[in-house]
Amino acid sequence: MNEFELIREFFSGKSPSRKDVVLGIGDDAAILRVPDGMQVVATVDTLVEGVHFPAGLPAEDIGHRSLAVSLSDVAAMGAEPAWALLALTLPNADEKWLADFTRGFLALAQRHAVALVGGNLARGPLSITVTAHGLVPNGGALRRGGARPGDHIYVSGELGAAAAGLRLIRNGIEPEAGERLRAHFARPEPRIALGLALRGLAGACIDISDGFFADLVHILQSSGMGGEVNVETLPLAPEAVELLGRAEARQLAFAGGDDYELCFCMPPSRLAQLRQRLGNADCTVTQVGVVTAEKSLRCLQTDGTRWVPDADTSGYRHFK
Amino acid sequence: MNEFELIREFFSGKSPSRKDVVLGIGDDAAILRVPDGMQVVATVDTLVEGVHFPAGLPAEDIGHRSLAVSLSDVAAMGAEPAWALLALTLPNADEKWLADFTRGFLALAQRHAVALVGGNLARGPLSITVTAHGLVPNGGALRRGGARPGDHIYVSGELGAAAAGLRLIRNGIEPEAGERLRAHFARPEPRIALGLALRGLAGACIDISDGFFADLVHILQSSGMGGEVNVETLPLAPEAVELLGRAEARQLAFAGGDDYELCFCMPPSRLAQLRQRLGNADCTVTQVGVVTAEKSLRCLQTDGTRWVPDADTSGYRHFK
Repeated sequence: MNEFELIREFFSGKSPSRKDVVLGIGDDAAILRVPDGMQVVATVDTLVEGVHFPAGLPAEDIGHRSLAVSLSDVAAMGAEPAWALLALTLPNADEKWLADFTRGFLALAQRHAVALVGGNLARGPLSITVTAHGLVPNGGALRRGGARPGDHIYVSGELGAAAAGLRLIRNGIEPEAGERLRAHFARPEPRIALGLALRGLAGACIDISDGFFADLVHILQSSGMGGEVNVETLPLAPEAVELLGRAEARQLAFAGGDDYELCFCMPPSRLAQLRQRLGNADCTVTQVGVVTAEKSLRCLQTDGTRWVPDADTSGYRHFK
Repeated sequence: MNEFELIREFFSGKSPSRKDVVLGIGDDAAILRVPDGMQVVATVDTLVEGVHFPAGLPAEDIGHRSLAVSLSDVAAMGAEPAWALLALTLPNADEKWLADFTRGFLALAQRHAVALVGGNLARGPLSITVTAHGLVPNGGALRRGGARPGDHIYVSGELGAAAAGLRLIRNGIEPEAGERLRAHFARPEPRIALGLALRGLAGACIDISDGFFADLVHILQSSGMGGEVNVETLPLAPEAVELLGRAEARQLAFAGGDDYELCFCMPPSRLAQLRQRLGNADCTVTQVGVVTAEKSLRCLQTDGTRWVPDADTSGYRHFK
């Protein structure tokens, strides 16, 4: 089976159809229509086997995860997901693997009405690059640079769960208590609903991919601000605390990476409105700190003493 | 130096600025504005070291080539290039290599006013994925499916030159006569001006990446047509004929791949208008065949006898 037949068999016609897709997979390029009054957001991410996920991770997880990490950036911009292009590099044409990968990828695409509008299949060491596009009303995108003194710093969900899950996967041990942690790593859920709800409310937003600390620093630097964080308020997964102890779970929450939760800054007066917009959405929001005009980031404990991380506090760096 | 600093140093602020880029590199995603009355075309391509180019190809060539192959798809749609996202996977943070790569990439971006609006840098085996976007008036894109009986089949430039150049690079021999062949492989020039000139004239268009034969088959299948090609009219590079002999040069023109020329179908009555639009553009256009209603592709010689390729006639296949 050659490249064209593979792409046709596994992807064509299976992804959600959208009215704004004039022409999907099958020509030199897709043709896309942008509704009046909307802007496009675009982002690209690569996952390399052995670097971003361990060899042997089930293909269905890899399919989900490769789309999820790009959609997480779309969420952080407050955009509605629209289109994706998939560049898949595979060591060999394993049809079972491809079918599993596709199932994971398309199930997530379906849930967020993302049309797969372009694909490239190449032979080589396993890696997946997904370009994702979203739509946002003119001027309505969330950026990193709008945090103001007095804003509260919030995060969604739980932090450090994915890093704890990755550790369990790497150690080859998956006790039942770890299943939810494992899913946090293997099947992150992009916070699309939260991103949309934050439009017009949050001054700054980022998705937590490198780790809470590193990504908060991105927001504060872009905004020309500093901050104060109470590390005891970081939302931890109970399973991580149980399996690793509270101190270690906190370290992972602080700098573990791969969370794909959102971190955002917003005047606290808007929290009620945010909760109203979120309604019954399955998304907790926790205040973990406050933005300051002084350009430093202080990490404190509840009793006011300094907290010093013992891990690499720079988050996940690709080239150290 | 970490990922962020690398991206900032090598790419930020160096690519052309465009009014339709509301926000470029540096946030979770770029924000892009699409002018009224225009549609977006989007395409993705991956180059893997050792598969799509030989190990040791100079980084500046790789930078040029990785953008060129995606812009070639934009050209084939008749679109004006606009934005690109670059996902670069590197075994190590070699700053010299990155500087050279960037020079090649950005020089081509500059020539076609392409803004680099997104980047991802990962550690892993060398591969480059570029997503390219173009703009085209509503309904004005060139597709593969509009060839009609009696249309002539045309190609731009010379065919087989890149495949001959790749052979020279692989054999480690670069006689002076081969320099232009080598450049055809290492530095293909996307046919942007030709694609724009073909708007409203060509019924079907494709870029020749898999090889003339394979890509012409794509056009004919999409159009529900057949064709007749005179292989003696395929435009060959004189250097390829000199170095490899005419028979071998013709085989490479027929099925060699990597040409990144355009193949298009158009009523012959429009050729004069096309030439007028092209003006002094450095782009030859050669008629090589005719579209037929009978759904087969016949390859003939000038004396009317059948021509049978001795190479793999399916073009370049990634998974055989």
